[in-house]
Amino acid sequence: MADLRSDTVTKPTPGMREAMASAEVGDDVFGDDPTVNALEAHVAELFGHEAALFCPSGTMANQIALQLVVPPGGELLAGSDAHVVTYELGAAAALGGISTRTWPSWGAALDTDAILAMIRPPGYPSVPTRAIAVEQTHNLGGGGVIPLAALHRLREATFADVALHCDGARIWHAHVADGVPLFTYGQLFDTLSVCLSKGLGAPVGSLVVGSRDRIAQARTIRKRLGGGMRQAGILAAAGRYALDHHVKRLSQDHTRARRLAEALEPFGVVEVGAVRTNLVPLDLTKSRLDAPSLAAAAKEHGVLISAMLPRTARLVTHLDLTDDDIDHTITVLRSLLT
Amino acid sequence: MADLRSDTVTKPTPGMREAMASAEVGDDVFGDDPTVNALEAHVAELFGHEAALFCPSGTMANQIALQLVVPPGGELLAGSDAHVVTYELGAAAALGGISTRTWPSWGAALDTDAILAMIRPPGYPSVPTRAIAVEQTHNLGGGGVIPLAALHRLREATFADVALHCDGARIWHAHVADGVPLFTYGQLFDTLSVCLSKGLGAPVGSLVVGSRDRIAQARTIRKRLGGGMRQAGILAAAGRYALDHHVKRLSQDHTRARRLAEALEPFGVVEVGAVRTNLVPLDLTKSRLDAPSLAAAAKEHGVLISAMLPRTARLVTHLDLTDDDIDHTITVLRSLLT
Amino acid sequence: MADLRSDTVTKPTPGMREAMASAEVGDDVFGDDPTVNALEAHVAELFGHEAALFCPSGTMANQIALQLVVPPGGELLAGSDAHVVTYELGAAAALGGISTRTWPSWGAALDTDAILAMIRPPGYPSVPTRAIAVEQTHNLGGGGVIPLAALHRLREATFADVALHCDGARIWHAHVADGVPLFTYGQLFDTLSVCLSKGLGAPVGSLVVGSRDRIAQARTIRKRLGGGMRQAGILAAAGRYALDHHVKRLSQDHTRARRLAEALEPFGVVEVGAVRTNLVPLDLTKSRLDAPSLAAAAKEHGVLISAMLPRTARLVTHLDLTDDDIDHTITVLRSLLT
Amino acid sequence: MADLRSDTVTKPTPGMREAMASAEVGDDVFGDDPTVNALEAHVAELFGHEAALFCPSGTMANQIALQLVVPPGGELLAGSDAHVVTYELGAAAALGGISTRTWPSWGAALDTDAILAMIRPPGYPSVPTRAIAVEQTHNLGGGGVIPLAALHRLREATFADVALHCDGARIWHAHVADGVPLFTYGQLFDTLSVCLSKGLGAPVGSLVVGSRDRIAQARTIRKRLGGGMRQAGILAAAGRYALDHHVKRLSQDHTRARRLAEALEPFGVVEVGAVRTNLVPLDLTKSRLDAPSLAAAAKEHGVLISAMLPRTARLVTHLDLTDDDIDHTITVLRSLLT
Repeated sequence: MADLRSDTVTKPTPGMREAMASAEVGDDVFGDDPTVNALEAHVAELFGHEAALFCPSGTMANQIALQLVVPPGGELLAGSDAHVVTYELGAAAALGGISTRTWPSWGAALDTDAILAMIRPPGYPSVPTRAIAVEQTHNLGGGGVIPLAALHRLREATFADVALHCDGARIWHAHVADGVPLFTYGQLFDTLSVCLSKGLGAPVGSLVVGSRDRIAQARTIRKRLGGGMRQAGILAAAGRYALDHHVKRLSQDHTRARRLAEALEPFGVVEVGAVRTNLVPLDLTKSRLDAPSLAAAAKEHGVLISAMLPRTARLVTHLDLTDDDIDHTITVLRSLLT
Repeated sequence: MADLRSDTVTKPTPGMREAMASAEVGDDVFGDDPTVNALEAHVAELFGHEAALFCPSGTMANQIALQLVVPPGGELLAGSDAHVVTYELGAAAALGGISTRTWPSWGAALDTDAILAMIRPPGYPSVPTRAIAVEQTHNLGGGGVIPLAALHRLREATFADVALHCDGARIWHAHVADGVPLFTYGQLFDTLSVCLSKGLGAPVGSLVVGSRDRIAQARTIRKRLGGGMRQAGILAAAGRYALDHHVKRLSQDHTRARRLAEALEPFGVVEVGAVRTNLVPLDLTKSRLDAPSLAAAAKEHGVLISAMLPRTARLVTHLDLTDDDIDHTITVLRSLLT
Repeated sequence: MADLRSDTVTKPTPGMREAMASAEVGDDVFGDDPTVNALEAHVAELFGHEAALFCPSGTMANQIALQLVVPPGGELLAGSDAHVVTYELGAAAALGGISTRTWPSWGAALDTDAILAMIRPPGYPSVPTRAIAVEQTHNLGGGGVIPLAALHRLREATFADVALHCDGARIWHAHVADGVPLFTYGQLFDTLSVCLSKGLGAPVGSLVVGSRDRIAQARTIRKRLGGGMRQAGILAAAGRYALDHHVKRLSQDHTRARRLAEALEPFGVVEVGAVRTNLVPLDLTKSRLDAPSLAAAAKEHGVLISAMLPRTARLVTHLDLTDDDIDHTITVLRSLLT
Repeated sequence: MADLRSDTVTKPTPGMREAMASAEVGDDVFGDDPTVNALEAHVAELFGHEAALFCPSGTMANQIALQLVVPPGGELLAGSDAHVVTYELGAAAALGGISTRTWPSWGAALDTDAILAMIRPPGYPSVPTRAIAVEQTHNLGGGGVIPLAALHRLREATFADVALHCDGARIWHAHVADGVPLFTYGQLFDTLSVCLSKGLGAPVGSLVVGSRDRIAQARTIRKRLGGGMRQAGILAAAGRYALDHHVKRLSQDHTRARRLAEALEPFGVVEVGAVRTNLVPLDLTKSRLDAPSLAAAAKEHGVLISAMLPRTARLVTHLDLTDDDIDHTITVLRSLLT
């Protein structure tokens, strides 16, 4: 099977398994796991922040960050197609009492003026806007990269009491695609979540990044959510290995995604220019098959893809795929889209 | 003082006071208040629903309805400028765990295709859309009236498990402006909230309207929110008086609002065509004074208006105003906007 | 019917109706209702606190107070039989995210050492205790009065960051029964809720009492809960009338409750010594009839009582009852309990 | 250092590391991890339930189970000293809106009649009791084992709509201490949580156990809480190894705990008879040193213990300790307690 459903399906490499097998560990709930501590310090430093906290998932890292910057009854601005709005099962409202007001599904093409105009200024009798969340790269936006200038504009124009959060599950891809240093991204946000188990290939793990005070609170929130793990150094070792070995190679995934897009563009389901990183969204509005049917048919030919919506499918490139997998996927999808 | 801040400022008329003074009452938490029971039955019948529940505020009526149709973790679609999104202090998320995904600030000019496209279909790994809320008339949309055809379109196209809620705080104004029967509106929605203390002039009271089963649950939710009142018949008597005497007269408020708009249109702050009911929003983007400054200056000349946002003020006509009040308001605002 | 189900069933007296009919009102959400403002100032002064806030129910007043003193994730200590634990439909947890750890059903006979031993001291890895709530008089404790010494002991021994809240729905009865000034009670608590619509006979209304800062926050919480009412002065006028005319007369209710207890003590369902105020709990553990059966049978003879639990019924005296009602109730219950 | 703070400090053994290094994995969010799937099926079978779900912590496993059996606004009965009440940071209320009413700190010595009397029967105007949670073995109850008869009594007497949950973080110890089959325990409860990373020595992981329908819902709740992990088979492999190799050996931990108790009993801080499993609570009420001081002093001599409360310390035996560690601990504590 060529599994292009998501970059979350990657399995640990032999080197990564070796790192896990030999990891020095301790009880991380007591703060005693040296491998976790080192990973947290390393990631904080990469982004130029004071501290970071290891979490079992990107959803938890995002939700902890949102609870840090928006109190219950406060308002978060985010995209209608953001991961925190779409794929976290309503956690911001259900667990944090956080209201979300959303801008349209722009993907990475943010209309910053429109976003800034949405902020409820303090002193008026409306629910106060406490944070803005953006997603870099943008999952439902087809792996698009928000231009640095747009992020700068948001940072400069936001009120003192409106925090900026980055859902940076795939910020590594933006870093590789645009050459923007992670540190530069770090300086733009009050909090970030970053993920080691998507494109980077670690089995489990995300981190929240922020100030020392916020991360101290984050530890309490993580415990309440059930994210306090014991000898988590096993997982942190894989994450560190991924950071050290799997960032630069993302350019290969981007190249392959572009190859897929070039091959499928003639069928009117994708534009090559829109594919910037490792995601290839397929718009099946005018196709014979809808997304579930296409996914089912591809599976019969050994290719796994995701049906995201009735008429939207998605291909994802990652480190477990070979050039043969890409070739085979192209062959199968060409025949099905004809 | 000519108080045009809101139609909530109206004081009970002598007839209404008389109705309150002679109201027959009982303990409504035990279901024993005959005046409350009669009002609830009457309002349910007006909208062609099985039942209704008296509440201390429009916010509570809305929030109870939302909790009835969206479980914690579920998603509500609403306008970015809806009362439930803007002026209820994040209650849907904070108290009900309800996620809100919002469409842009269209006021009453709903893009129904765009709204229907926002619905997350069941069976995909995203947070399920459980309800759509619209507001009739639309407060931040300048008292605009959603066309009946748009409401029909939403009703017909929504999935079986997506409920429609109407924040009908000022649905009486829509009924008077467009001549659409209340019953017709009632048939379009699973739940409605209607308010007796805004344009209708009762001191306190809103109702949730819906099916017998939902209103039975609503009673529990109301108790939890602290909305169970004892001899509420005092208030219900005023509400019934308002329904019997103050609906038709809303056309006078609409006429006066139009007069205000016509007088101020030359200053570029409002378009007469946009004023359909009793609200006159003033767009001060290009004015010398911002909204708080205009409100403060008007107050010095005996006119109270609301600063809704830094550059948006609002005038509201209602039954406590006289023609002289309107004349005086025009004189004062003309001089301040020059 | 002699209605002894609760003191909430009282209907407004002619004088109270007159006070409502002539009340000066305004929009209380804008802070413009002079009658509400005067009542809030008066009640604050009675208890020696800076401020108070008018609410539609005792449940809302309690829940606002609890949200003021316990953040989400914090812990409240209260009695297992407290109103806030038993009769507010889980609001503290459901709306405020507040954990409750309870002491046994002691009624008013608090074991203060045991309560103080329950406090989780700061600095240990457990959920922090943020407040203790007591109830004066104690509803499920049969209207018992917590001795002043016990309250002093709680006040002196609590940590700086553990607040004391009093559910004072019937604190007027304690004041009359024990002669303790309301001011003295006020000084013992960080927040109090007091009710005008139970023994005092007003149709609707409770207040939260506390510091100026807390009551400012309370206003926001009340709005979110849907408790912001407009011309609430109608209700506040009745409440003020009740405070001015119906406090001293509570001694009559206490005398009548004692008469009921004396008449029923021979049947082994109540001890006269335990009846301190206007509540008469009946323990039907050894009776032929259980509580619902007794209530149903009494109703057939024109007497309404409450079945609180399968084997617990309750009689309540209040200002709408006559001596004849008490005589008749005694006759009926004697025959049913034989 | 002899680390007796908790059995959570254990590090993976070489065999367990080998199991992790060679584990077959997949994306568990997609249900594709064979090692996780096998572990879940195995644990479900051990307890005679239909299904189980792997979670990153015992807190998450407990909280998912509580959300499964108690809706927001419902009531849970639990011990005042239960882990779910004490050490999960108020999660039941903060995340699930669940009210807790607690019985006194009885540890494992449950007064079942008193517990059953706490249940609010349906049909009365109080918050409904929806579940009872017990803890086996009981952490703050010094590792005590609830007698099987008490559990049977709870099971038989509870209403149909009151679920029983077992926080079975250390149920393995009860199984070994009393010889009760895991299957027998399983049949007594609607839901259980069991932990692999405490006495069993796995680095990370707990499971919720229950019916197929409940575990399907649990998957949604886990995702919302941020507990959806990808290649979790790495951790599940360690958990399976722990189940296969580390259950029977718990008797060694029990023997060592008893040795510690016997050595310290003369100092009046513990009764040997009360030590049934691997926890040794020290009551320092009458000691010279309080718990933090004792822990600090012991640390200087190479022994780590936990200060649970100002006058309560705790020793825990586990598979990473040697007989020498026990001897050294005895020597150090004897000298400090003299």
